[in-house]
Amino acid sequence: MAQLPKAITNLINSLERLPGIGPKSAARLAFYLMNTSGSYVNNLAEVLLKLKTEVKICGQCFSVSETERCQICEDGRRNQRQICVVERAIDVMALENVGGYGGVYHVLGGVINPLDHIGPDELKIAELMDRLVQLASTESDKEIEIIVATNSTMEGEATALFINKKIELLGFGKIKVTRIGSGLPMGADLEFADQATLARAMEGRRRL
Amino acid sequence: MAQLPKAITNLINSLERLPGIGPKSAARLAFYLMNTSGSYVNNLAEVLLKLKTEVKICGQCFSVSETERCQICEDGRRNQRQICVVERAIDVMALENVGGYGGVYHVLGGVINPLDHIGPDELKIAELMDRLVQLASTESDKEIEIIVATNSTMEGEATALFINKKIELLGFGKIKVTRIGSGLPMGADLEFADQATLARAMEGRRRL
Repeated sequence: MAQLPKAITNLINSLERLPGIGPKSAARLAFYLMNTSGSYVNNLAEVLLKLKTEVKICGQCFSVSETERCQICEDGRRNQRQICVVERAIDVMALENVGGYGGVYHVLGGVINPLDHIGPDELKIAELMDRLVQLASTESDKEIEIIVATNSTMEGEATALFINKKIELLGFGKIKVTRIGSGLPMGADLEFADQATLARAMEGRRRL
Repeated sequence: MAQLPKAITNLINSLERLPGIGPKSAARLAFYLMNTSGSYVNNLAEVLLKLKTEVKICGQCFSVSETERCQICEDGRRNQRQICVVERAIDVMALENVGGYGGVYHVLGGVINPLDHIGPDELKIAELMDRLVQLASTESDKEIEIIVATNSTMEGEATALFINKKIELLGFGKIKVTRIGSGLPMGADLEFADQATLARAMEGRRRL
């Protein structure tokens, strides 16, 4: 069996490490890149090189940013006393794409997952508590809302409960903790929904 | 709606142009790259930059190569009088991965497709004819076999017929043109096969 040129094998090996890309897709992408214009390939390499140097992590919410503090945290029109807690920066993007949310965010950087050796200390939970203590000490009568929007997975649910407990222990009565709604996704058939989703949908029923 | 850092948007836009990668996958990959190690991202950028400079196209078979002539064309143990004609270099890889084929290749660079304005002149068909004329003039009594292994699509079939016609017009009796077998793929159910595949499978039946 003949060997491929090393530059192609190296590229295939690199691409294979990306999530959702198996050996066949990696080979397909490598040969596509081989046959496409050189300027596109060079541009892709350049944006990759710039990624790590140009993108910063916001010092307040830990989302991606171009400056020390991200656009959302700096935005004076946004309610700084409404904080949506998410797992990853991509979740901020998803929620912002919907529009309509006027508060700010807090990116945990993952969820508590003992199997992957990720405990509360690996996440930005202590930073969230610091942020809350600081927020509670200003305008002390105004309510603060924390919307826990971790994923609806077992780990996401456990992390939400953990955060709720932690906030309770802070002992501020004015902090309200909520969890994003769960139930049937829009457009879904009741018939095909799993039991856990259906149970949640019944629990979370609302008055019309 | 808040804007993402420009470096991330640029990367998402670049990744979206890859085949099989939509806007959601592109965003997912970009955020994955954002959170992964810097050395991996830099390495990926480097192999991309090397791709176009280090990989050459073989002067005989037009497959990918590290030298002027590829490993397969240079291999003295391979039968230079058995040429497998394929659409793309990735097809050479697929056939080599199977092993067992002892001939050489000829990469057309695509198929005849009038809708995409790709005619015979855009492909390496003239180069194949030159190669055959040259081959026929050496060891003039030995048979030459051309295995046309273009895809089993309408365009692939048309290109196979076109190449067969062209070779006939060369007027060398000793050139045998064959087409790779078509029929049921291994592991497939007859019940679910389409009519064209079934018809081909019946035509291509073999004695057990």
